[in-house]
Amino acid sequence: MENSKVFPPEQLFDFSVRVFRHFGVPEIDARTAATVLQAADLRGIDSHGVARLHSYFDMLQLGRIDPRPEITIVRETPSTATVDGGNGLGLVVGPKANAIAMEKALAVGSGWVSVRNTNHYGIAGYYVLQALERDLIGWAMTNTTKLVTPLWGAERMLGTNPIAIAFPGLEEPPIVIDMATTAAAYGKIEIARRAGAPIPTGWAIDRAGASTTDPNAMIDGGAMLPLGSDRDRGGHKGYGLAVMVDVLSAVLSGANWGPFAPPFALRQEIPTRSVGKGIGHFFGALRIDAFIDKVIRRREGIPLVGPVIDELLDISRQTGIPL
Amino acid sequence: MENSKVFPPEQLFDFSVRVFRHFGVPEIDARTAATVLQAADLRGIDSHGVARLHSYFDMLQLGRIDPRPEITIVRETPSTATVDGGNGLGLVVGPKANAIAMEKALAVGSGWVSVRNTNHYGIAGYYVLQALERDLIGWAMTNTTKLVTPLWGAERMLGTNPIAIAFPGLEEPPIVIDMATTAAAYGKIEIARRAGAPIPTGWAIDRAGASTTDPNAMIDGGAMLPLGSDRDRGGHKGYGLAVMVDVLSAVLSGANWGPFAPPFALRQEIPTRSVGKGIGHFFGALRIDAFIDKVIRRREGIPLVGPVIDELLDISRQTGIPL
Repeated sequence: MENSKVFPPEQLFDFSVRVFRHFGVPEIDARTAATVLQAADLRGIDSHGVARLHSYFDMLQLGRIDPRPEITIVRETPSTATVDGGNGLGLVVGPKANAIAMEKALAVGSGWVSVRNTNHYGIAGYYVLQALERDLIGWAMTNTTKLVTPLWGAERMLGTNPIAIAFPGLEEPPIVIDMATTAAAYGKIEIARRAGAPIPTGWAIDRAGASTTDPNAMIDGGAMLPLGSDRDRGGHKGYGLAVMVDVLSAVLSGANWGPFAPPFALRQEIPTRSVGKGIGHFFGALRIDAFIDKVIRRREGIPLVGPVIDELLDISRQTGIPL
Repeated sequence: MENSKVFPPEQLFDFSVRVFRHFGVPEIDARTAATVLQAADLRGIDSHGVARLHSYFDMLQLGRIDPRPEITIVRETPSTATVDGGNGLGLVVGPKANAIAMEKALAVGSGWVSVRNTNHYGIAGYYVLQALERDLIGWAMTNTTKLVTPLWGAERMLGTNPIAIAFPGLEEPPIVIDMATTAAAYGKIEIARRAGAPIPTGWAIDRAGASTTDPNAMIDGGAMLPLGSDRDRGGHKGYGLAVMVDVLSAVLSGANWGPFAPPFALRQEIPTRSVGKGIGHFFGALRIDAFIDKVIRRREGIPLVGPVIDELLDISRQTGIPL
C-alpha cells in the first residue's frame, strides 16, 4: 500500500488516549475510546480504527460532541433500559450501555438497551466481543448517517445500519457475525474509487436512481443498495433489516431515525430536520445457562458406550497407562 | 391458475380443525393450528396455509408428530425460557411458547423463548402479529430442513431459517418483516419448475456446486443460496443470518441444528444422525413502554405554538365552533 508504515499498537493506543484527553475526555473514558478503536485495528477492520481518529478529532474540535457527557438511564425494567448518552463519544457511551445490557442478562436472563443522544461507536463487533468475555450471547446494532436507498428508491434514506451478534463457543471458536445491512461496505466503494476501478453491479445506484458500476457516481449523490441488491435477489430483505436496526436503535430510544441521523464526519451533509437526539444504538445480551447447560459434560462427565470403554481398557492394558 | 376454485375461509378453517381432531388433537389445539394456517391463507402466503395441510396429515398419520404432546418449560429465568414441545405440532407448540415470551415481556420488559422438540410452525409472521395485538414488538425465528448451502459450499447444510419481526405503529400501520434468510423463497423455485421457466442467477447451485438457472438442477440434489447470493454481494451475510437463526432456535434449546433438522414433509430426506430433539423455534417480545412513551401526546395533550393557537381561535371566532 502507498507509503504505509507499521506502528506498534501501544503507540497508537497512547496517541489516541492523549488526543481524547486533549479535549477534556476523562482518563478512563479516553482509555475506553482508544480500546474500541484499537479493537478495530487489531481485528483488521482498518476503516474503523485510528483511520477514523481525525473524524472524532474534528467533531470534538467543533464542539459537536461533549467530551464529558452526563450519561443517564432514563427508563428501565428488570430486562431493559433506555440510555441517554448526553451527546458523548459513542466510543464511551456504547461500552457503558452495553455493560448495562450484560448486567441485566446476568440478573434476569437477558438485557436490552436502546441508546439515544450518542455518536459513532466504532465497530459493532467490539461490543459483542465484550459479551463473549462474560460467556454471554451479545448483540449490537447502530443507526448511521444516510447512505442507503430503500429497494426501488433513488434517495439516501437509511444508514449502513450494522448488526453484530456473537455466540460463545466453549472449547470451539466463538461465532462472531458483524455485518452492515448493505450489499457491500462503504469502504469497498472508497477503495474502488481510489484505485479508479469499477464496482460490481448491485452495490450502488447513481443520483438518477440507475444501477451503476462507477464508484464516483455513488459517492456524488448516488446511494448504496441494501443487502440483496434487487427485487429478484431479495433487496427488500436487506432493506427490512436496515429498518429493523433503525427502529430498535433510534425510534425506540428517541434518537434521530432514518434520513435524520446526524453525520459522523465533517464532509457529510447535516440533515435539515431533527426528530430526536443524536444517533441511536441497541445492545442485547442473553445468558446461555438461562436456556441450556453448556457445561454438562464438564461437570457431570462424558458418557461412553460399552464398546468404546472396552477399546480404551484394551489400550490401557497394552500400554500400562491407567484409565 | 389451473382449476382454481374459491373457498370461504370458514369452510377451510372447519375442515382443518376436523382433520386435526381426527388424529386426536384436542379441540382447542386443533383450533389454534387451524388459525395459524388460516393466517397464512388470509395474508396471501398460499404456500404456508391449507396447501400444507396434507403434509401435517402425513406426519400425524405416520405417528411422527404427537397429537397430544406434553409441552413443558424445562428452564426459565424472569426474562427467558426453554420450552420442550413434546414433539407436538409446531402450529400448537409455537403459539404456546410465543405466549410465554409475551407474558415475560409484560412482566419484566422483554421475553425470549427457545423451543426444542417441535415441528413446522407455519408462517413466522403469525407469531409477530400476535405480539402486535398486545402492542409488543415481536420476533419469531425457526430452523427448518436443510435446503441451503453456506457461501462457497456445495452441500445443503442449513434451512431457509426465516426471521420475522413486527413493530406496532400506534396510529400508523405496523412494520411487519417476515423473510427467509435466502435470496429467494423455495416456493418461487417450485413455481418456476412447474412453469418450465428458468430462475435468476443467484438463487441456486446444482449438485456439483455450480451456479444454475435451472430449477430442476436445484431441486435434484442442488442447493439454495443465502441472501446476498455470492461473495461480492454479501452472501456471507445471509449465511451468517441463517446461522444466527439456527443457533438461537436449535443449539440454544437442544433441538437438531443445521443439517440434522428433521424434515417437515414426506418427500424430504431424513438425516442419518440426530443431535437433539425435533426442530427449534425462537420467540422474542419487547414492551415498547419499557423504552419510550408511545402515547405521551394522547395522555398529556398536544403542544401547540402561539401562532397556531391564534389561527385556531380565529377559525373558532369566525365559525362559532368552540375550541
